[in-house]
Amino acid sequence: MKLATFSAGAAPELGVVVGDGVVSLSRAAPQLASDMIELITRWDDIAGEVAAVAAAGAHRFALDAVKLHAPIKRPGKIMAIGLNYADHVAESKMETPANQIWFAKMSTAANGPFDAIQVPKVSQFLDYEAEMVAVIGKPGRRISKGDAPAHVFGWCVGNDATERAWQHRTHQWTLGKSFDTHAPFGPWITTADEIPDPHALGIRCFVNGEQRQSSNTKHLIFNVWDQIEHLSGAMTLEPGDLIFTGTPGGIGAAMEPRQFLKDGDVVRIEIDNLGAIENPCANEV
Amino acid sequence: MKLATFSAGAAPELGVVVGDGVVSLSRAAPQLASDMIELITRWDDIAGEVAAVAAAGAHRFALDAVKLHAPIKRPGKIMAIGLNYADHVAESKMETPANQIWFAKMSTAANGPFDAIQVPKVSQFLDYEAEMVAVIGKPGRRISKGDAPAHVFGWCVGNDATERAWQHRTHQWTLGKSFDTHAPFGPWITTADEIPDPHALGIRCFVNGEQRQSSNTKHLIFNVWDQIEHLSGAMTLEPGDLIFTGTPGGIGAAMEPRQFLKDGDVVRIEIDNLGAIENPCANEV
Repeated sequence: MKLATFSAGAAPELGVVVGDGVVSLSRAAPQLASDMIELITRWDDIAGEVAAVAAAGAHRFALDAVKLHAPIKRPGKIMAIGLNYADHVAESKMETPANQIWFAKMSTAANGPFDAIQVPKVSQFLDYEAEMVAVIGKPGRRISKGDAPAHVFGWCVGNDATERAWQHRTHQWTLGKSFDTHAPFGPWITTADEIPDPHALGIRCFVNGEQRQSSNTKHLIFNVWDQIEHLSGAMTLEPGDLIFTGTPGGIGAAMEPRQFLKDGDVVRIEIDNLGAIENPCANEV
Repeated sequence: MKLATFSAGAAPELGVVVGDGVVSLSRAAPQLASDMIELITRWDDIAGEVAAVAAAGAHRFALDAVKLHAPIKRPGKIMAIGLNYADHVAESKMETPANQIWFAKMSTAANGPFDAIQVPKVSQFLDYEAEMVAVIGKPGRRISKGDAPAHVFGWCVGNDATERAWQHRTHQWTLGKSFDTHAPFGPWITTADEIPDPHALGIRCFVNGEQRQSSNTKHLIFNVWDQIEHLSGAMTLEPGDLIFTGTPGGIGAAMEPRQFLKDGDVVRIEIDNLGAIENPCANEV
């Protein structure tokens, strides 16, 4: 299934995307869950009911008549891995990492799939990073890579938007990765059962229609199961936590001359079977 | 006032610490707030009522008869600054930073003031870092250092517990700072009005009664107002967000020979006027 958070003129509601429409779970079966994290947490008990509501098709809205929000308004945590595609390592003039390199994006950076990405007031070296995003379902600590697939609820398209000057102002990247609006994701969560192999998906990024990144998740250096095993050695992963799984080559900062995003630019990121997000850039006011 | 989250045999409740007791807000005035973040958010409207409840003194429990929890169960974000006391910079054999160095601790690391700190299964280079913690009250973005004091709700004692091997496994510290249980803080929140100058407080750390750290917050390289100005250039600070403001010299990893925390050790951290936290260490099971 494809699960969305959307609004149709009123407060945000939960829905199931079916074809070119979205069926409102919040209207058809409000008792199931009040937000996406609760829906994910209760999923094993309610998936059948959700499917039945989607099949019945009442309370359906055309997708182009609603606003899609970030599927999860405030993820409990957003962890992101760096330097995880060989071509991105090369363009960054770094060594292939022996160990997974993790940083965080603050939950206040979460943003909708079609909402504006701020060009910050304090610095204007804004860049994009197309990434596949894993959404955690079943919680766990010290999850083995063999068990990891059972802990992924679903998948999204994400943009690990980055303020390059602040990323590199010190050796710690987290602050430059955590500007408000700099973690757009969506357009919905595609449940794991629909993606038999998440390590075989084409991923592309376009700026104003020009292709900047094009790769495949098969090129991840550390695959998602490795990532979950490593992360959960330190921390409990919980329902709705996000993992940004790395970006391929083609970032603006590595172009010659360097290209940064500016007011009015539009960044589109698409991943096979997961849909596309498309965010305009707008100066912070 | 001193605001605590505690339990007295039942579910966690909010209270005001008065002398050697805690007055239950949750029992005396349950309509005021259901958790600490809501209390902080509503503070300007309800502070008078909270003070009246504390003065009335009904529903009072002796402090030694209750369990004190983390004042905020799941902070929206926990940001922490590195290398922010000169003696700690020196012992770390680093240069005095020209810019503020920020990393994050995941909210799943939040821990109570007297609860066990896990010695992780995956690595056993556990260390302490005594820190003053600022709790954000009024939300804001691009807060000037002049306005910063108005955005601090109060202050806590914190331990920026750190798994040193994972901190230094790559150049990104966040993962080694984010193990479950590695962000104990408390014992309560002392509201800002009670601390006329947060940059004049003695701060000490003891391991099994032996003093390891002793300094004063006047030695912060970047003071808290500088920190809030810088952080909020990137992100909106929100009620209940925590800022770990840096640790003085004396960490275990800089001792000769190096000392790491092990099962059964007890770490006590105290800060003038803010109280003390005391956490045993226990092997992760």
